[in-house]
Amino acid sequence: MSLIIPAYWNGRLVPFEEVRIAPDDAGFLFGDGLFETLRVDDGRPRDLSAHLDRLLAGLERLGIAIPESRCDLGRAVTEVAKAAPRPLARLRLTVSRGTAAGPTRLITTSLYEPPGETVTAVLLSDHRIDSRSPVAGLKSLCYQTNRVALREAETRGAFEALLLNEHGRLAEGSRSNVALVFPEGILTPPTGEGCLPGTVRRRLLERGALRERPLALADLEAARGLLLMNSLIGVLPVSRLDGRELPVGPEAARLRRLL
Amino acid sequence: MSLIIPAYWNGRLVPFEEVRIAPDDAGFLFGDGLFETLRVDDGRPRDLSAHLDRLLAGLERLGIAIPESRCDLGRAVTEVAKAAPRPLARLRLTVSRGTAAGPTRLITTSLYEPPGETVTAVLLSDHRIDSRSPVAGLKSLCYQTNRVALREAETRGAFEALLLNEHGRLAEGSRSNVALVFPEGILTPPTGEGCLPGTVRRRLLERGALRERPLALADLEAARGLLLMNSLIGVLPVSRLDGRELPVGPEAARLRRLL
Repeated sequence: MSLIIPAYWNGRLVPFEEVRIAPDDAGFLFGDGLFETLRVDDGRPRDLSAHLDRLLAGLERLGIAIPESRCDLGRAVTEVAKAAPRPLARLRLTVSRGTAAGPTRLITTSLYEPPGETVTAVLLSDHRIDSRSPVAGLKSLCYQTNRVALREAETRGAFEALLLNEHGRLAEGSRSNVALVFPEGILTPPTGEGCLPGTVRRRLLERGALRERPLALADLEAARGLLLMNSLIGVLPVSRLDGRELPVGPEAARLRRLL
Repeated sequence: MSLIIPAYWNGRLVPFEEVRIAPDDAGFLFGDGLFETLRVDDGRPRDLSAHLDRLLAGLERLGIAIPESRCDLGRAVTEVAKAAPRPLARLRLTVSRGTAAGPTRLITTSLYEPPGETVTAVLLSDHRIDSRSPVAGLKSLCYQTNRVALREAETRGAFEALLLNEHGRLAEGSRSNVALVFPEGILTPPTGEGCLPGTVRRRLLERGALRERPLALADLEAARGLLLMNSLIGVLPVSRLDGRELPVGPEAARLRRLL
């Protein structure tokens, strides 16, 4: 492929191949930074405002001050998204504490191939989310435990790994938020349970399509449906959990129409 | 300074300034990798074998396969250490899962200025170590919580932050192992408490100079001395904890002579 995919790198648009991270970047040394993953449909980034909200709040919490204003960042994302692979792309916005020269800001895109209409999952009961971690709720560059969990899921032929918190309750997936379908409504764990405050989750909560409640393993057993949410997949139903068939109802499609 | 400090980078010795990390390196994207910090005295790396042991065991646990044999890695460390700043240097050996081209292996050095004969610390009771984390005991590139804790300590004028585990017991410092001095001996938390298996700690355990025991906050109150250990400082006594003066005995100096 000779396509030149531009990236945003510390204030400039450059070909992706020219981007280089310094070996003493705190993002590489210590995972000291944050990232956002956005879906780009035909060159248009989805839910940009919610992603900027979360990123900027996280950077403030970590004391990482970037030179770009919120508008600058938004413009940079829009610019890079325009030239992103089509029809669908994954856009990653990364900010690390960087080097003595200042924080690193990077926006890159790559082709995204969505999974099918339903996905599969496994429950990793020994991979614990710590709801009291000082970086709980931040989409930190420290993502190794999520990656280890995802790799374990993929080894077992599944799309996603479900993770419990220190209380043994359902927290989230390795790269998604979770929700359970009950006759009385669709429930998702509150952020106090240690899950990331996902943008799709947030939007569905705002629209009243989801409600928050801590979810025990017994709830997972009793639910009539299990849904995964993130900015790339939107909302998808899980059709098999640990090899057990799960009912797939109309809820995921209904929620997707609200996004 | 026009000194050229060589680094080892994916099989080659190059000037540090030439090292560049790809923007899609899993170390930068996800903190997916491990590192070791060694002390270099006048060009000689300390405790190389223990650091290689820990690194290689961790890489195996993570399924990261590097082309270098143990001997190759040791030779590379020795080579880079020879040209390290004198009299004291910090050597960092980093291995990340890298890119599609393979894992990234990097060895760099920088001048190390040791603290004084005693240091100060604060107890951060809200920064929890999760002893059941899937990366517990690994010196992971996901080091952000440690950095946040260290920054908090430094803001409060202290050298180190002491961290508790999910049981509220003493686990470790943000960049050191801890030990408490009692009349019956010097005690340090077992690795099951969530601390990193430090190389100085390991050596002192092997020599019978330390014993393992879970340490409650009451132990911290009752101890007649608090010691910090890591590969750079060796063993140092804490002379002030949260502003309270602590007794400084001869134990740290005695333990240093065993290293």
